[in-house]
Amino acid sequence: MAYFANIEKITYEGVQSKNPYAFKFYNPTQVIAGKTMEEHLRFGMAYWHTMVAGGADPFGVNTAVRPWDSYTGLDLAKARAEALFELMDKLDMPYFCFHDVDIAPEGDSLREFYSNIDTIVDLLEGYMKQSGKKLLWNTANMFSNPRFMHGAASTSNADVYAHAAAQIKKGLEVGKRLGAENYVFWGGREGYETLLNTDYALEQDNISRMFHMAIDYAKEIQFDAQFLIEPKPKEPTKHQYDFDAATTIAFLQKNGLDKHFKLNLEANHATLAGHNFQHELRVARTNGMLGSLDANQGDLLIGWDTDEFPVDLYAATLTMYEVLQNGGLGKGGVNFDAKVRRPSFEPEDLFLAHIAGMDTFAKGLTTAARLIEDRVFEDFIDKRYSSFQEGIGADVLSGKATLSSLAEYALNNETPRANESGREEWLKSVLNQYLVTE
Amino acid sequence: MAYFANIEKITYEGVQSKNPYAFKFYNPTQVIAGKTMEEHLRFGMAYWHTMVAGGADPFGVNTAVRPWDSYTGLDLAKARAEALFELMDKLDMPYFCFHDVDIAPEGDSLREFYSNIDTIVDLLEGYMKQSGKKLLWNTANMFSNPRFMHGAASTSNADVYAHAAAQIKKGLEVGKRLGAENYVFWGGREGYETLLNTDYALEQDNISRMFHMAIDYAKEIQFDAQFLIEPKPKEPTKHQYDFDAATTIAFLQKNGLDKHFKLNLEANHATLAGHNFQHELRVARTNGMLGSLDANQGDLLIGWDTDEFPVDLYAATLTMYEVLQNGGLGKGGVNFDAKVRRPSFEPEDLFLAHIAGMDTFAKGLTTAARLIEDRVFEDFIDKRYSSFQEGIGADVLSGKATLSSLAEYALNNETPRANESGREEWLKSVLNQYLVTE
Amino acid sequence: MAYFANIEKITYEGVQSKNPYAFKFYNPTQVIAGKTMEEHLRFGMAYWHTMVAGGADPFGVNTAVRPWDSYTGLDLAKARAEALFELMDKLDMPYFCFHDVDIAPEGDSLREFYSNIDTIVDLLEGYMKQSGKKLLWNTANMFSNPRFMHGAASTSNADVYAHAAAQIKKGLEVGKRLGAENYVFWGGREGYETLLNTDYALEQDNISRMFHMAIDYAKEIQFDAQFLIEPKPKEPTKHQYDFDAATTIAFLQKNGLDKHFKLNLEANHATLAGHNFQHELRVARTNGMLGSLDANQGDLLIGWDTDEFPVDLYAATLTMYEVLQNGGLGKGGVNFDAKVRRPSFEPEDLFLAHIAGMDTFAKGLTTAARLIEDRVFEDFIDKRYSSFQEGIGADVLSGKATLSSLAEYALNNETPRANESGREEWLKSVLNQYLVTE
Amino acid sequence: MAYFANIEKITYEGVQSKNPYAFKFYNPTQVIAGKTMEEHLRFGMAYWHTMVAGGADPFGVNTAVRPWDSYTGLDLAKARAEALFELMDKLDMPYFCFHDVDIAPEGDSLREFYSNIDTIVDLLEGYMKQSGKKLLWNTANMFSNPRFMHGAASTSNADVYAHAAAQIKKGLEVGKRLGAENYVFWGGREGYETLLNTDYALEQDNISRMFHMAIDYAKEIQFDAQFLIEPKPKEPTKHQYDFDAATTIAFLQKNGLDKHFKLNLEANHATLAGHNFQHELRVARTNGMLGSLDANQGDLLIGWDTDEFPVDLYAATLTMYEVLQNGGLGKGGVNFDAKVRRPSFEPEDLFLAHIAGMDTFAKGLTTAARLIEDRVFEDFIDKRYSSFQEGIGADVLSGKATLSSLAEYALNNETPRANESGREEWLKSVLNQYLVTE
Repeated sequence: MAYFANIEKITYEGVQSKNPYAFKFYNPTQVIAGKTMEEHLRFGMAYWHTMVAGGADPFGVNTAVRPWDSYTGLDLAKARAEALFELMDKLDMPYFCFHDVDIAPEGDSLREFYSNIDTIVDLLEGYMKQSGKKLLWNTANMFSNPRFMHGAASTSNADVYAHAAAQIKKGLEVGKRLGAENYVFWGGREGYETLLNTDYALEQDNISRMFHMAIDYAKEIQFDAQFLIEPKPKEPTKHQYDFDAATTIAFLQKNGLDKHFKLNLEANHATLAGHNFQHELRVARTNGMLGSLDANQGDLLIGWDTDEFPVDLYAATLTMYEVLQNGGLGKGGVNFDAKVRRPSFEPEDLFLAHIAGMDTFAKGLTTAARLIEDRVFEDFIDKRYSSFQEGIGADVLSGKATLSSLAEYALNNETPRANESGREEWLKSVLNQYLVTE
Repeated sequence: MAYFANIEKITYEGVQSKNPYAFKFYNPTQVIAGKTMEEHLRFGMAYWHTMVAGGADPFGVNTAVRPWDSYTGLDLAKARAEALFELMDKLDMPYFCFHDVDIAPEGDSLREFYSNIDTIVDLLEGYMKQSGKKLLWNTANMFSNPRFMHGAASTSNADVYAHAAAQIKKGLEVGKRLGAENYVFWGGREGYETLLNTDYALEQDNISRMFHMAIDYAKEIQFDAQFLIEPKPKEPTKHQYDFDAATTIAFLQKNGLDKHFKLNLEANHATLAGHNFQHELRVARTNGMLGSLDANQGDLLIGWDTDEFPVDLYAATLTMYEVLQNGGLGKGGVNFDAKVRRPSFEPEDLFLAHIAGMDTFAKGLTTAARLIEDRVFEDFIDKRYSSFQEGIGADVLSGKATLSSLAEYALNNETPRANESGREEWLKSVLNQYLVTE
Repeated sequence: MAYFANIEKITYEGVQSKNPYAFKFYNPTQVIAGKTMEEHLRFGMAYWHTMVAGGADPFGVNTAVRPWDSYTGLDLAKARAEALFELMDKLDMPYFCFHDVDIAPEGDSLREFYSNIDTIVDLLEGYMKQSGKKLLWNTANMFSNPRFMHGAASTSNADVYAHAAAQIKKGLEVGKRLGAENYVFWGGREGYETLLNTDYALEQDNISRMFHMAIDYAKEIQFDAQFLIEPKPKEPTKHQYDFDAATTIAFLQKNGLDKHFKLNLEANHATLAGHNFQHELRVARTNGMLGSLDANQGDLLIGWDTDEFPVDLYAATLTMYEVLQNGGLGKGGVNFDAKVRRPSFEPEDLFLAHIAGMDTFAKGLTTAARLIEDRVFEDFIDKRYSSFQEGIGADVLSGKATLSSLAEYALNNETPRANESGREEWLKSVLNQYLVTE
Repeated sequence: MAYFANIEKITYEGVQSKNPYAFKFYNPTQVIAGKTMEEHLRFGMAYWHTMVAGGADPFGVNTAVRPWDSYTGLDLAKARAEALFELMDKLDMPYFCFHDVDIAPEGDSLREFYSNIDTIVDLLEGYMKQSGKKLLWNTANMFSNPRFMHGAASTSNADVYAHAAAQIKKGLEVGKRLGAENYVFWGGREGYETLLNTDYALEQDNISRMFHMAIDYAKEIQFDAQFLIEPKPKEPTKHQYDFDAATTIAFLQKNGLDKHFKLNLEANHATLAGHNFQHELRVARTNGMLGSLDANQGDLLIGWDTDEFPVDLYAATLTMYEVLQNGGLGKGGVNFDAKVRRPSFEPEDLFLAHIAGMDTFAKGLTTAARLIEDRVFEDFIDKRYSSFQEGIGADVLSGKATLSSLAEYALNNETPRANESGREEWLKSVLNQYLVTE
């Protein structure tokens, strides 16, 4: 059965095409810097936004019209699974991602939830075999159910902690069975509403304990996916523990977890934390922790997570610049953690929005590759820091220098090497020139 | 000579007094929780804001009228030093803090700067001996001079790096000589304007190298002050490396520096980073890194560092709550990194503003001490997390639990222990009741 | 029937009482500045937050436990209405406020909606007569239903515009019947998601047309409530037309509507617009447009509408300061547009939160009244601007001055009258002293 | 004499050129939509940022190296004037803008200031005649001098008010003499630091009085420039009266000033007020108040006015879209109210930054013109609102509809016309396609 019978498979037609249902920049088989676009970008579809969510916001109910609207319960879950593969096929998207509650109804008990998950996982496994589509990552939703009102691994209620553990255990088993390349932790309720009622130290320790248990269990069942943590500074919780990349790294280091995790970074979470996305990517990359991307964008004039489809060519270019400099994403990919706007409620908008996002990243990839090939920024940077390649600068890098030797040098060189302009305006105009040419 | 001849020494007169030049809450000898207010609060005066700055902002020049305005050069430096001790005496403030450039003019060469510093340090030493006033901390200003346009320890210019080292070396020597209890690093230009021209990894490594050199030199000269880093997310630099407490801790851990440093936390820097001050204090406290405070407040509707005198009783209460729970500040203190507003340009405002700040912290201290004595929050928290003291919860804390044992528990306890309300609104109303009573 | 059988009527016990279910500051019959607290504050309960909402947020479903949870449909609507009056009685709250969809289910057609509304309005009328409780204001919810995805009065769909008109018509009739003292317009979807698809001018004109029709109809049915507009800068819509008080006033003036409307100002909306609440109140007051208050507070580190119960004594004091200077709120009141935090899910929290809010406003009222009685700010301000009471200053106020006469004065008075300090720090410390004393 | 002898006149070389000192998009004589680029864009140079400022910020002194650094006093003023015309010539920039204090030192008295102004105005007049360059606008700086600490037209000191009037009077005379096309008012200190010491109503009235006097005087001396107000929400003042376009319009309407003023809108001021620049332009355009542009950009993650050179192609395109839809800027122009970054301290950076800005606006202009020519947004919008062209929708626009007639229509049309998607994602991807093609 076809849920989107009126829409053909999307193909590459190039920027001159006026066909809205065509890729203008994304050509999966085109080779850039030694790999195909598909291999570079490893696009993933987000089950929750695309198959489940319906446009509700705190001031209004769902608006979305979806071809599976007539189903309920487990039938709805099955219809969504089927429709997902039609969407992935038509959009030429190789990966998908989900939370446990996205794919199966929770039912009335944990036992029933496990059973519902198994039913849908059987189905997904079949579709995956048929289609060749793959699971980029899965995760457990431990923030929507009322039981998690005080957190999951950071809850004040030990029974809730046990329930969270049970969801993670199942999540790891499902990931193993479906060959997930990564397993993600996003702590939407791991944080606090007010410190007045919070045992901050205990909560942090309990999160660490949960992570160690997850590592042990993955080892036990020989599930070798990359573990990922997804930082976010706030929302839904007033203050979340994994505020940003650096905060998460501090936590992992302190608890001996840094060798077991990488980061799943999201653009909109970066800006909510006061950073641009490139900053978060750079922090992760420099620490060897760049794992995977949640591709979307926020509105910097808006203080909540808008999860817009990424359409900013600057951001996409600098994102792919960091990815290329990282030697790619390894097991990670570019997951569209993005939702159509509430008034973009028609099924067609799911296509148009994904095309917009995929095209934006494709154009970002080609622009970044050209910038790197031409060493536009690299040559400038090498020259800029060249004083550390010789003399007193080399002494600093080699560890030979001391405060005393440097002070003596400074006293004897009262006319120091002059600074040179950072040329920020010029570098940005060069970026513009690369952006508008093909 | 008296610079503030028209103002008498400020004494405690209590909240009923209408005398603006009197303490209403701060009574230095009053004993709270086993120590005097003076011992708890260890107030410090900021040389830069109080003796040097004059109200200029990006859109206007100085407005301040100061009794030392007629002096210039080294004479001005001497007058400021003398006036400082009069101010500290009249305000009953035991400590002060300075950057090297606050106390002495830079002159035309590093050599001349060293000499000017020595001249003023001689003077300060004398005044300190006479008055019993002490140096809470000193630091080197490595952000105002044009040479630091690209950073100091993170500069792209090795000669500038050497100059920075020379300033730190002198700073450590001055600290040793004046018995500074702490030595502070604030990296106002350690960060980047744009990643397009920045070797982020090299810059971070060079900062680490500088810190290691500083540790070595302090050891060499037997200067046993506590080293402090002061986080700030931005301003003047677009993005600063020591964004907040957690980011700074991540950096220190990664570079093997965490045993050598604590944090000097500033309220206005916390809010610029998207945290309230209590959060930053809690992060530091939980990591054993709460060193000292830069007491001020920002305006949360304003996106730059306003460094207002702290007059918010809520913030002061929760700050002193964290300090008391930390067992005090050790070598640290409460330094007024605060400036009078540009239109508060009269000499009298320096008194009125410090009285406002000291009173606010004194009231915060007494309120926090009563809250702790009555275990208002502690009892609530203990009960809230009590499920981790027995059964499955105790297994989690003891390390006995595994994902499998927890999942089994969850499957066998389908009706889990119910959550209880976090009672945030009630806790906040209790805080109000403590605030308005004495 | 009692929905809250375990809770007694809340009475005033004063700040020393440890009973959490007691007023500490709010004493309805206490006289302040010539009126009782009840007359000053005119507290109102918000139907939507207190009777309808359940703690859901974009990442989680309802958590609230409510005594009427077992009902559905029209029975649920009836149970809520009954429970409302029990709550108002026990909390000694004289007013309530509602949207049409709060009190009655929409059903399957507009006709059914009208009928459901009539059923509940009958019920409310009876309860009001029995209890003496009054309707502060009602309004039409034209933002939750999917039909309003593109706006209501600013929709691109003329049929939706007609539906909105039908809701307003009914709202005015209901208001007339229940003796509402005000009728509110909040344009939650009146704005745009992107200007790329928006006819901004047409939308603004259509809103104006709708307001004119509403004025005409109210006149037709002799409904003499005060019309109020409630500004909000964004959320749910990316950019809302009634951004803040000034923007709303500009719109009203331009469209000849300013004589027919006042403003219903909300604290959390003010801060989302970049203003503190006092600013918005002052703008409205100075323009003769201060109508009514939505009492709550936001978290300034959070970028969405948190609608927290107001517990900030500073904000409450300055709010009541503006209200007292306005000669009171006239037909307006203090409506608690506030919701308990998601983890404050127990029925008891509804009481604790309202007590917290009412106490905060009561304390704010008494503090403000004392500040005004003592003319703390007024005397300072009179002196500060006294140069406009004589000489050249008086010429300015009287309209006698011209650029030429002023320039001549300036040229002839090269040593002008000196400025005097604004004394901001001192004024804030005086505010603190008033706050902590009774 | 040549201040920039090493730099040739900048010419158009096109986007393929690697010459950093060449225009890639700006070709002044190229015709777009019936006018040359030069006629459309009317670029202006900002005296203050380019000739006067030196890179200082609140944490550091000037860094800029300028060819006129060796001069002081009036000689410096003369050198700057000369250098300005060399810069304008080499950059092919037709207009400039200044504050009184930019061009001439204030000296020790108002009389001396007048005299210094006259000296430089003589000089400027000569250069203008020689070169054909024109004055886009001038203004009076009434925010830098300490006398304006409490405001200028909103000061609490009548003598300061008189001084402000004297500066405006002279400004109008200078504008008349130099043929300024506009005269600008930016109220950098017109606002308040705290309402606790502020007579808000008096201050607003006094500003209105000053504007009326300025209108009268301009009429008296037959100076027919367009008067412009430049909104800004804050900085330097905590809260400024001309917060944004709508607030300014409300003030002008209320005081009968709206026929005499248009707005000078600045991109960075828009974002500080929580709006994107297109919003502010649209508000002004719809109110017939779009006067002139201060072209720059802010960093949305930074809360102060960074005044960066505009390099964002999206912003430039949507800005020029509004300008073209406005039928151009009339007497207004595109003034680069932008400064090179502090580390871009070399004279060459002044060229590179202006080239970057001019190119960005040129590319924005051509992209906007193509979007309009193809009616990309217009056709979509026309269709979107088409239901208001017939039937009940037409009744609304014609004024025939009433609440009763609309309600009756709604009751009789229970299955209303369905909404259609707003297609935001698709519209944004089309914008991308236009952006990257030429």
